[in-house]
Amino acid sequence: MQIAKSYVSLKAKNKILQQQNAKTAFVPTMGALHEGHFALIKQAKTIADKVIVSIFVNPLQFNQQADFAEYPIMIEEDVKALQDIGVDLAYLPTIEDIYPAGFDTYVKPGKIVNCLCGTSRGSHMQGVATILLKLFNRLQPDMALFGEKDYQQFLLTKKMADDFDLPIKVIPIATEREKTGLAMSSRNKNLSQNAKEKIAPLIYQKLLQVAQSDIALDIAIKQANEQLIIQGFSKIDYFELRDQENLQLLNNRVANSRLFIAAWLEGVRLIDNIAIMAD
Amino acid sequence: MQIAKSYVSLKAKNKILQQQNAKTAFVPTMGALHEGHFALIKQAKTIADKVIVSIFVNPLQFNQQADFAEYPIMIEEDVKALQDIGVDLAYLPTIEDIYPAGFDTYVKPGKIVNCLCGTSRGSHMQGVATILLKLFNRLQPDMALFGEKDYQQFLLTKKMADDFDLPIKVIPIATEREKTGLAMSSRNKNLSQNAKEKIAPLIYQKLLQVAQSDIALDIAIKQANEQLIIQGFSKIDYFELRDQENLQLLNNRVANSRLFIAAWLEGVRLIDNIAIMAD
Repeated sequence: MQIAKSYVSLKAKNKILQQQNAKTAFVPTMGALHEGHFALIKQAKTIADKVIVSIFVNPLQFNQQADFAEYPIMIEEDVKALQDIGVDLAYLPTIEDIYPAGFDTYVKPGKIVNCLCGTSRGSHMQGVATILLKLFNRLQPDMALFGEKDYQQFLLTKKMADDFDLPIKVIPIATEREKTGLAMSSRNKNLSQNAKEKIAPLIYQKLLQVAQSDIALDIAIKQANEQLIIQGFSKIDYFELRDQENLQLLNNRVANSRLFIAAWLEGVRLIDNIAIMAD
Repeated sequence: MQIAKSYVSLKAKNKILQQQNAKTAFVPTMGALHEGHFALIKQAKTIADKVIVSIFVNPLQFNQQADFAEYPIMIEEDVKALQDIGVDLAYLPTIEDIYPAGFDTYVKPGKIVNCLCGTSRGSHMQGVATILLKLFNRLQPDMALFGEKDYQQFLLTKKMADDFDLPIKVIPIATEREKTGLAMSSRNKNLSQNAKEKIAPLIYQKLLQVAQSDIALDIAIKQANEQLIIQGFSKIDYFELRDQENLQLLNNRVANSRLFIAAWLEGVRLIDNIAIMAD
């Protein structure tokens, strides 16, 4: 596996990769790799000739310095894992390499970010779109893969690629889950063992219950929220049904809709979502 | 000369161009072509193998509907001129081709647009950056050429290319002028013959006078503004000295600075700028 830690080194190594006329797939990450990332990488290997993975904890997408500071870093294990799984090129840039002094041009996403994580996390989505545009331009991959756990991020990226005419295919991959149903996430490391095994999995259970329940959507969601708070969650940021293309809020379980949730447990913000299979 | 009027047609024709492993140069225009554009195209032909020109009056960069509606359109003469000068590919998209329904992702330029034409023209610079990013992505040229008359636009584009890591070289070309010194501009067509020949050229004269004068900069600019108003200009939007890299306002004629002016004559907004050659 090739490793590049700067743009200069990346250019040279990526050029060799691309010269082989290879179809390249890109998996952007913030490190602290888990089975969710590995599922993306394995999928990438089946549809492309070469796989590029980036590890970069992007300061632009953190609205609170504390959250950025606490984000788990385990670069040596990550690099070993990428090596073992057979990644072709790993890009591990520094903050200065990505954002040199004076950097101040950003992507301004459209109305798709005015809901869900877009509203509760300030300029988070602008930061996500900006780093992805930069990485796409630096790496020039044919495709990029995104986990559906961060569904709004996937949709934002797809919309940016469409609106900006980027020569890249943006591909969603189903969320990887623990046996308990808990969506894989680097943030799960910040939970106590009891919370991770007994409480956090309730998020997925409640998503399934609300999706499959026969009672009215608003009542089912209200009940689920109350039960989550009773079980130990400190706050529900949102629990909503939305169109899975344009994220418009929906009142009834219809085709092409998706249930989204963000909830706080032990000071950790957990998110998840599932598609609704309407009759 | 190949002509593409849609993205689909462009993709096919551009692919053939690029397959010849040619260095491609791109000159974006809003049509109503004049000697200023032709100078860019001729320069492009000397430094690249193939030259692509776009003609697209971009609604995003007009803040007033009337200005957009009045912008001169002369597509047949333009196409003939491009053919005569030996352009390889002309891209003449419709508004719907560039901005399909639902389009809403934009480029958010940095502080370089918080002055000069950036302040007096609302979201103009955001519109300029967004269309250029889209055209760069659709055409994938090796370089793009910009006239220095729209210096802030050139600088904005260069900054965007740097900040977004675009694989393109952004090249400035000296302003073409009438024999009177008036900077070539499509908007000059909207002036009366008298204004164009006798009054508008005062802009360049005053730039030179202020640049070369021994009196203090603020006084020289104040006098120049007064004289322009007396001679028939209705309003001076700005007449300022700025750093030619970061556009910071300057109080003294120093190296790497540039004098900028925007002034209204017969309802037409004219702009110009010159570099200061400090001792």
